[in-house]
Amino acid sequence: MKISIVGLGLIGGSIAQGLKSKHQITGFDPDKNTQDQATKSGINIASDLNTCVKDAELVIVAAPTTQSEEILRELKKINFAAIVADICSVKAPLLIAAQGLNYVGTHPMAGSNEAGFSSANKDLFIDAPWAVSVVNETNKEALAAVINVICELGGFVVPVDPHDHDESVVLSSHLAHVVASAYAKSVGESEFAQLAQLLAGGSFRDLTRVTTSPAERTAEIVWPNRKSLSRVVENLGENLAKLQNLLDQGSQADIEKFLASASSLRTISDATLANVKNKQGNKVVSKIDNLVSDFLKYSKSRVIASDFSITNSEVSYLVNEI
Amino acid sequence: MKISIVGLGLIGGSIAQGLKSKHQITGFDPDKNTQDQATKSGINIASDLNTCVKDAELVIVAAPTTQSEEILRELKKINFAAIVADICSVKAPLLIAAQGLNYVGTHPMAGSNEAGFSSANKDLFIDAPWAVSVVNETNKEALAAVINVICELGGFVVPVDPHDHDESVVLSSHLAHVVASAYAKSVGESEFAQLAQLLAGGSFRDLTRVTTSPAERTAEIVWPNRKSLSRVVENLGENLAKLQNLLDQGSQADIEKFLASASSLRTISDATLANVKNKQGNKVVSKIDNLVSDFLKYSKSRVIASDFSITNSEVSYLVNEI
Repeated sequence: MKISIVGLGLIGGSIAQGLKSKHQITGFDPDKNTQDQATKSGINIASDLNTCVKDAELVIVAAPTTQSEEILRELKKINFAAIVADICSVKAPLLIAAQGLNYVGTHPMAGSNEAGFSSANKDLFIDAPWAVSVVNETNKEALAAVINVICELGGFVVPVDPHDHDESVVLSSHLAHVVASAYAKSVGESEFAQLAQLLAGGSFRDLTRVTTSPAERTAEIVWPNRKSLSRVVENLGENLAKLQNLLDQGSQADIEKFLASASSLRTISDATLANVKNKQGNKVVSKIDNLVSDFLKYSKSRVIASDFSITNSEVSYLVNEI
Repeated sequence: MKISIVGLGLIGGSIAQGLKSKHQITGFDPDKNTQDQATKSGINIASDLNTCVKDAELVIVAAPTTQSEEILRELKKINFAAIVADICSVKAPLLIAAQGLNYVGTHPMAGSNEAGFSSANKDLFIDAPWAVSVVNETNKEALAAVINVICELGGFVVPVDPHDHDESVVLSSHLAHVVASAYAKSVGESEFAQLAQLLAGGSFRDLTRVTTSPAERTAEIVWPNRKSLSRVVENLGENLAKLQNLLDQGSQADIEKFLASASSLRTISDATLANVKNKQGNKVVSKIDNLVSDFLKYSKSRVIASDFSITNSEVSYLVNEI
C-alpha cells in the first residue's frame, strides 16, 4: 500500500519504521534535521505536504493537535479523496476538522518520555492499546485499512466514540501527567526535598517518571481537553481532602479501606490486557459490511479487539470486554 | 558473623537470602507457613524470639513498625547487649523504643507490590538507597557492622538524622502511595473508568503500579507518619488547585511552565544515583574513630555513600552530595 506519513516525531517516525518493510512509505516533516535522520534510516522524504500525499492510498497525520487540524484542512482544500488517519490525543475536535475527508481518527496508547525521530522505534506499539474512533460516517474500507496498519505494528484495537475517548484519556493519561507534576512540585517545595530525592524507591520512581516528558509536548496534549481535565483535577482534590480528613480524624483501618478501594483499577486493566496478549477472548466472525456497525456497538460497550483477519467479504477477530 | 533476623517477610526474608552464604543466619517468624518456607530454603529457624537472638552478634528486626517496637522492648527486658538494627519506615519512634540498646536504625528503599517470604529474593537491595540513622549515641562498631551488611546486600548508604528521615519518606514514599490511590479512586469514580482502563498507557501504568501493594501493609507504614503526611497532602491539594486555576483561567504556556517546574526532581535523583552506580564520587579516607561524627555531618548535608572498605583502624568510601 502507498502510505504517506505527515510528521516524523516519536509516533510518526515509529509508524514509518514499523511499516517500511511492508509498504511504500513517503514521509514529510518540516524539520530539516528530522528530514535528514529519516532519509538516513531509509525513509523516502517529500519536500512538501502536497508532494508527500500525492498518489497515497492512506495518509497518516502524526503531528501535534493544532498542526494536525491545519493539515486536515489543507487536505480538504485539495479535495483529497484517499483514506486519512491521525494519531492525536483528542478525537472530537479532529473529527470536526476532518469533515468531508475519508477519515478515521486513531490514538495509540504508546509513547515515551523521549521525543523526536531519533527516539522512534518500530516496536513502540507492540501490545499497546490503540483507540480507533468510529462514527456513522466512517467508511468500512478506511476502517479496515487502519485496523490492518495497527495490527501490523503490533497494537490492539479499542473501538471508541470520539467524545468518550476524549473524556477517557483525560483520566488515563492527562490527569496522570499533571498529578505526577503536582506530586513532584510538592516534594520539591519541601525543605526535605534533597533527602527525599536520595531516598528514592519504587513509589517515587513510578510517580515521577512521566514528569521527565517534554513539558511543551504535555502542555500541547492536555490543552485541548482543559475543561474536562479541570473537572477531574477538582475531583482528585476532593479525594485528597477526604484522605486528609481520615489522616487527621480517622483510624488506621480507615486509611486501609481508602487504599484498598483504589487497587482494583490496575488489576482489572492488567487482567484484560493479559487475556488479549494470550489470544484469549470471544471470537467474532462477521461480514465486512457490518464492520462499522459492529464497531459502533463496541464503542459503547468497552471492548479491546485483537487478532484480526480481514478479507473483502469477511472479518474475524477476538474481543475482550472489560 | 552470627546474625539473627526477626521477621521473615519480604524484607527480612530477602536479607536472610542475601546473607546466608556469608554469615551464620538464624531466623524467627511467628507465622507457621513462613517458618516452613524459610526452613525449606535453608534458613535455620528458631522456635521463639529468645532462642533466635541467643549468641547473636547482630539482630536485625524486620517486622512491621508496631511489632518492631515491641520486639525492641523485649530485647531491653533481657538486657540484650549485642548490636540491634531494624528496617522500619519510621526512625524517630524506633529510636525511642530502642533506648538502652546498642542500636542502629535503618530503612532500605526497596520493596515490591508483593509481600511475604515467598516473594523474598537476595537481589532485592542491589543498587537501592538504604537509610542509616545516626545520632550522638550511635556506636562505631555497630554502625560499621550495619554498613557492612548493607554493602554485602548491594545497597548504598544514605546517612540520615532520624527525624529528617521520617519527614523525607513521607514525601518520597508515603505521599506517592496515597496520591496513586487518590488518582485511581478518581479514575474509578468516573463514568469513563472502563474505557480509561482499556486505554492504559505508560502514564496510567506508572501512576497505578503502587496501588496494587497490599493496603494493610501500606496503611501500617503510613500511619505512624500521619501528621506529616496530612500536611504534605494538603500542600499537594494546594498545588492541584493552582493547576486547576491555570486550566480554567490561564494559557497553554502557563501549563507548560507548571509542568516544566516539576521535571528536575527526578532528573537530579537519577543523575546522583547514576554517579553512585558508576563508582564516581569524592573518595573519603578516615579513621574508624571518626565514623559516627562524619556520618552525623553527612546526615545534614544529604549525601549517598558507597564502595566502603572498613578495617579496625580505617574506613574509606565514596560520597555523592545532592
